[in-house]
Amino acid sequence: MNVEPQSLVALIGEFSSLPGIGQKTARRLAYHILAKRKDEVERFADNLMNAVTKVHQCPNCFSFTDEDLCGICAERAGAKSICVVEKSSDIIPFERSGVHKGLYFVLGGVISPLDGVGPEQLHLPKLVERIKQEGIQELVLALGSSPEADSTALMIDRLLTGVDVKRTRLARGIPMGSDLEFVDEITMLRAFEGRVSL
Amino acid sequence: MNVEPQSLVALIGEFSSLPGIGQKTARRLAYHILAKRKDEVERFADNLMNAVTKVHQCPNCFSFTDEDLCGICAERAGAKSICVVEKSSDIIPFERSGVHKGLYFVLGGVISPLDGVGPEQLHLPKLVERIKQEGIQELVLALGSSPEADSTALMIDRLLTGVDVKRTRLARGIPMGSDLEFVDEITMLRAFEGRVSL
Repeated sequence: MNVEPQSLVALIGEFSSLPGIGQKTARRLAYHILAKRKDEVERFADNLMNAVTKVHQCPNCFSFTDEDLCGICAERAGAKSICVVEKSSDIIPFERSGVHKGLYFVLGGVISPLDGVGPEQLHLPKLVERIKQEGIQELVLALGSSPEADSTALMIDRLLTGVDVKRTRLARGIPMGSDLEFVDEITMLRAFEGRVSL
Repeated sequence: MNVEPQSLVALIGEFSSLPGIGQKTARRLAYHILAKRKDEVERFADNLMNAVTKVHQCPNCFSFTDEDLCGICAERAGAKSICVVEKSSDIIPFERSGVHKGLYFVLGGVISPLDGVGPEQLHLPKLVERIKQEGIQELVLALGSSPEADSTALMIDRLLTGVDVKRTRLARGIPMGSDLEFVDEITMLRAFEGRVSL
């Protein structure tokens, strides 16, 4: 016999469809919802719908926004440096550290033939167009350190042949607070290759 | 500057209010929602609302149901054995193992003065009333093994003084598949005290 009512089973199913949420956690979350006040759950449901109906991609940089243009594109129009990231949420650590005062551009992924992602799935034409039209002086590539990210960086470099823009990428090396003993081989290789004089 | 649109921040807030979901996981779940089709999210929101509007406590045993009477109370009316649990979800392992063919009763907690839970917060009168009226022959207490559960069991025992009903509780001992080396002291004490002849 099904011990749990159908509406509860359905809610458990919704939670367990989320990434990293197993059946047990999903059940715990669903029972937690049952213990909430109706107006709190109503707000949760509204916020779910708001997120998918109001949030869309900024037409200029493809980051998520609920306005015509995202906050950064609107406030920093005219900036001459652009940081290229893979996905919208990659912008957060830059803004949190306050290290980059310029624009951003969300590529929408990296080239990965195995996952069926070719150059045509990425927002490459818009990137090139913006760099030319806005007279961007520096392009900072911040695409992670996978082979796919490296080939995407190469592709961008080729697309910009003849365009007068400085191209950089984030430094690779030992992260802060990390114990040297546990640093993996690739990170160590890159930190050693990229060593700087004191 | 707030990098994320307000509707997204609100959704992250909803997820992070759930038990065991931190800020980072909440952000990951919210971005996952943004990547879903609108009709899928609509179904999620509907299921949230369905759960709180349709699911209520069975008036007979206080387990969760979305009908007048829960499935077990409806199908097993007349059974002479009742298993008393703390909360609705505790019924699941019994039904999964198929070990108990009788009724259930959800107490709504255990007596815990420190948490402000006294006997009056529990469904004790209804339990006593059902045992008398339905001619229950066995009451199986399945309240866990905390001191609070023990004093609740004692309270139930006292309330049933003079009522002709067999009272049992679940056995305590070594769980299946457990390595003796790592069994805690209390479990070992109870397993030893409760040893049975071969």
